[in-house]
Amino acid sequence: MSLDPVLSRIDSDLDAATERLFELLRIPSISTDPDFAEHCQSAADWLVADLQSIGVDARSVQSPGHPMVVGHVDGPGPHVLFYGHYDVQPVDPLELWDNDPFDPQIEDTPKGKVIRGRGTNDDKGQLMTFLEACRAWKAEHGSLPCKITFFFEGEEESGSPSLIPFLKENADLLRADLALICDTALFQSRTPAIITMLRGLLGEEITITAPDKDLHSGMYGGAAMNPIRVLTRILANLHDDEGRVQVPGFYDDVPELPEELAAQWQALGFDHASFLAEVGLSHPAGEVDRTPLEMLWSRPTADVNGIVGGYTGEGFKTVLPSKASAKVSFRLVGQQDPLKLRDSFRAWVRAQLPPDCDVTFADHGASPASHMSTDHPAFEAARRALSDEWPEPAAFSGFGGSIPVAGYFKTYLDMDAMLVGWGKDDDQIHSPNEKYDLESFHKGIRSWARILEAMKS
Amino acid sequence: MSLDPVLSRIDSDLDAATERLFELLRIPSISTDPDFAEHCQSAADWLVADLQSIGVDARSVQSPGHPMVVGHVDGPGPHVLFYGHYDVQPVDPLELWDNDPFDPQIEDTPKGKVIRGRGTNDDKGQLMTFLEACRAWKAEHGSLPCKITFFFEGEEESGSPSLIPFLKENADLLRADLALICDTALFQSRTPAIITMLRGLLGEEITITAPDKDLHSGMYGGAAMNPIRVLTRILANLHDDEGRVQVPGFYDDVPELPEELAAQWQALGFDHASFLAEVGLSHPAGEVDRTPLEMLWSRPTADVNGIVGGYTGEGFKTVLPSKASAKVSFRLVGQQDPLKLRDSFRAWVRAQLPPDCDVTFADHGASPASHMSTDHPAFEAARRALSDEWPEPAAFSGFGGSIPVAGYFKTYLDMDAMLVGWGKDDDQIHSPNEKYDLESFHKGIRSWARILEAMKS
Repeated sequence: MSLDPVLSRIDSDLDAATERLFELLRIPSISTDPDFAEHCQSAADWLVADLQSIGVDARSVQSPGHPMVVGHVDGPGPHVLFYGHYDVQPVDPLELWDNDPFDPQIEDTPKGKVIRGRGTNDDKGQLMTFLEACRAWKAEHGSLPCKITFFFEGEEESGSPSLIPFLKENADLLRADLALICDTALFQSRTPAIITMLRGLLGEEITITAPDKDLHSGMYGGAAMNPIRVLTRILANLHDDEGRVQVPGFYDDVPELPEELAAQWQALGFDHASFLAEVGLSHPAGEVDRTPLEMLWSRPTADVNGIVGGYTGEGFKTVLPSKASAKVSFRLVGQQDPLKLRDSFRAWVRAQLPPDCDVTFADHGASPASHMSTDHPAFEAARRALSDEWPEPAAFSGFGGSIPVAGYFKTYLDMDAMLVGWGKDDDQIHSPNEKYDLESFHKGIRSWARILEAMKS
Repeated sequence: MSLDPVLSRIDSDLDAATERLFELLRIPSISTDPDFAEHCQSAADWLVADLQSIGVDARSVQSPGHPMVVGHVDGPGPHVLFYGHYDVQPVDPLELWDNDPFDPQIEDTPKGKVIRGRGTNDDKGQLMTFLEACRAWKAEHGSLPCKITFFFEGEEESGSPSLIPFLKENADLLRADLALICDTALFQSRTPAIITMLRGLLGEEITITAPDKDLHSGMYGGAAMNPIRVLTRILANLHDDEGRVQVPGFYDDVPELPEELAAQWQALGFDHASFLAEVGLSHPAGEVDRTPLEMLWSRPTADVNGIVGGYTGEGFKTVLPSKASAKVSFRLVGQQDPLKLRDSFRAWVRAQLPPDCDVTFADHGASPASHMSTDHPAFEAARRALSDEWPEPAAFSGFGGSIPVAGYFKTYLDMDAMLVGWGKDDDQIHSPNEKYDLESFHKGIRSWARILEAMKS
């Protein structure tokens, strides 16, 4: 059997694999901040060199934003495309990190060893599990078990502005039998999850201007319109008292969960109380008649992700600011149309503007929800392979985050995607002190080796 | 007559006086930010040396915060205390300044020459008008026309935490027949104003915490409470649809304006339209049944002066933050009790907290409104003297800002205060590109010389 020596090699090579991951983690490839553009290029270059080291014909391709990395290697089995992203989230508030986010460390914790730093999970740690599985396979067998196209982007955390044009222009280069995406999580730490539903995302930034300059609230307060007052009144109207989003038409294309799927999810025995307790909460927010798992996997939501206006430094300043702004995201499900909702949201905001106020909007991405077809035999093969590696059998599940690329692959390349990943709920991705369990990294590599083995047969 | 040569000397000495002001303006004495503490000390030292240069027995006195400057000089007339503050507001947003805020310049503008920089008006430019009047008087006559105590603090822009204890401990050192305060403005640019009503100020900072760490909105959004959502809902409730403040009991001790005073104000012919147009507005905010002048001088208000939460940098980050905070100020009138209102505000906020949320409050000052008695003969003397200097006769007026020290002088030293000042509505105090008209500086110095002359007789 060809799998066992690969798994053994993965086990014995773990320290070296971790050191390779650390090299990539040390590159601060924050895509959303233009000051970090050269680091994004460095991360792309690093990946090209690493792919070449395992015999992949790889190169980085310029885009209007950060470069794409594309690689090809031949093999006997089916043709898969593996997608990941090398860019990471910003690190602020920096003062909440216990260590430099770009100086990764292995830490002993009560729950086991973890790799700590920005990108350890999202998505550098996850994408390297696939590369390391390929490296071990190549080292043992001299070739890979499938024909593989590698495709890494560097703009996932900033809305992937270059992605769709690139997919359109390079459809023939990228199309495969199936896409593999490693950017998701285990189900409650012990159960590998194969994602069949992903929420979409609409990102909007609104800036409200009232007076044409900052004013002294003693000179103008009361008499002049305060844009923070306008903004908070609008945002306060986003949800009604039952937690339902108030933007007109928001729920128009939101389906109820099919009974069969609801029953499958019910059978997973999600522990709602400990899910909330993990982050210091005890009461679910959101729509009052929905469970947290329903809210996360099958309901659309609205959240303010950032708000700023006026004086926010130390002490106090009685300023009446000229403008105030907020970043608002909507997670979308079913057939909700992000472009239609953007129009509806903007009209709804404008309708609430008092006299003398202006509003401007910035677009931070719009992608619909995705629903995976599980018809491809790889889904059943992966379910069996993952059930061999992990303590609990693998589950088909939903996912609260948005991985728009899965939908784009379907739309622009007519290619289904299979999403698996090894993250845990407490990995603090997008937050200070992001981590990835060493177990996630190790068993993740082993899981990919098993999936490749299962797919080739 | 002793006044004319003093006025002539003021005219001929204007360039040198401006250069002395520039020296003080170049010291970035921002009191609210601990990083600038040494500059506050430098500004205090500079004032001590400048007072000594005109024969004042002056020194700086340490306080728990920034130092106090106290000086005494004997003279034949009544005993006055002159108060000013050498600290300035922070300068952010720095990118909105056309020049370095601490590199003052004289600029030609369509409305005449202006001095541009932080503190040019508030309060360095204003306090230097008094010092320069004294300097000219001393140079012409070898002594000053009144017995004068000089008192400058360095914490006015950060709530004056050391002021009341200092007044209590040094009551005998500071008590005079009347306090003179130069920290206010002309009435609509041409009419000198002697302030008889000042609003009080309550400053509160509220911080709402929900989850115990920042979360990914894809993982938790919808299911976990978002503190920005809680904060915006509470702040949106601050005002009702008619612009009235909703904190319980807020209007309990707010008197209607006496008819006589209302008639006096009416006679001033305040140009509401151009007051608003000056800052790009056309509709008054605030209580719907009040004019802007009423709102500014005689009505209490609430304003959010700063709000921040989540990701506020470039681009987008789908974070669900752990906390969000806002700085809220209330301008107070009549007999409104700031401590009672603080309790009421905090209880009102707490009553709106959903489960799982915590709130903390920080206190940024609490001072009641002040009403000046105009019984002291200096008020009539100053009204005549100012009417000689300026194009329009001087008016007794209200003032929208808060100068708590006037109330403290009454409470702790049993001393009335007379407030005059030479600022203009478009001076952008507390904002980028603060300025002080060269005319304000020049005629301000001449005005003080006239007031001193009028008071001694």
